[in-house]
Amino acid sequence: MRRSRTLLSAILALVVWGVSSAALAEDAGKSGTFLLHPIGHVEKTGAATTIVLDERYEPGVLGMESGDKIWVLWWFDRNDTAEMRAILQVHPRGNPDNPLTGVFSTRSPVRPNLIALTRCTVLAVRGNVIEIDAIDAFPDTPVLDIKRAYEAER
Amino acid sequence: MRRSRTLLSAILALVVWGVSSAALAEDAGKSGTFLLHPIGHVEKTGAATTIVLDERYEPGVLGMESGDKIWVLWWFDRNDTAEMRAILQVHPRGNPDNPLTGVFSTRSPVRPNLIALTRCTVLAVRGNVIEIDAIDAFPDTPVLDIKRAYEAER
Repeated sequence: MRRSRTLLSAILALVVWGVSSAALAEDAGKSGTFLLHPIGHVEKTGAATTIVLDERYEPGVLGMESGDKIWVLWWFDRNDTAEMRAILQVHPRGNPDNPLTGVFSTRSPVRPNLIALTRCTVLAVRGNVIEIDAIDAFPDTPVLDIKRAYEAER
Repeated sequence: MRRSRTLLSAILALVVWGVSSAALAEDAGKSGTFLLHPIGHVEKTGAATTIVLDERYEPGVLGMESGDKIWVLWWFDRNDTAEMRAILQVHPRGNPDNPLTGVFSTRSPVRPNLIALTRCTVLAVRGNVIEIDAIDAFPDTPVLDIKRAYEAER
């Protein structure tokens, strides 16, 4: 009897968990909340700056060559708190002499969606590792996307 | 007896749900899965193209003026399926004559993280509405972020 009751509880628990998970997933779609999965991270060793892709993403660099200009999109992961993401106005460059400005009119590292954007030059591609000239991101910063950059794009 | 069993089941179900929700949230942090909340959407009416921000984000445009160059980051929402996000190589511009290329070396609208990037010129700012010159996004496309763009950035 006790065993069947425990079993019943376990089944009910699983059903409730399943229903709430499904509701969460559906809600994510409807409310337009989107999920990002990093594709790799930044490494800095000695003079070299590299983007190390997770190995499963290595096919995504086919055709990338030394000299290519790329946009690197990365995540301001050190600012990923509800408080930081609620900030909508800043003094640019943290200088109180600069007038208060909306974050969408700046490149502030605090903003509702913590996407950072840096234009880089590819120096070499070795398997899943892309060596670049430089990037204004800390080591271990999650990288979200890489895109071809064009000269006309300015 | 039946009532207490039902109660027990309900409590157990809630505990399991709570634990699994907490595990999900923690997992999101550890595995580095990040959440995006759109800040607004694209509208096209007649000749005008606008970004309509959700009203709560209006403070974020303080200081934005006609003539400013901005980066608009938006979501390729029509491609938001596991299948599309798993594509890592494409024939650029959908032309089979173009050699197969890694998505990170293209501007393909299929990629693991569906962030799109367009450089725009601000024509006017009225409250939470930013009129821009043009954007290669469909009406109602979710907008993720807006950043100041610089001439030197190329």
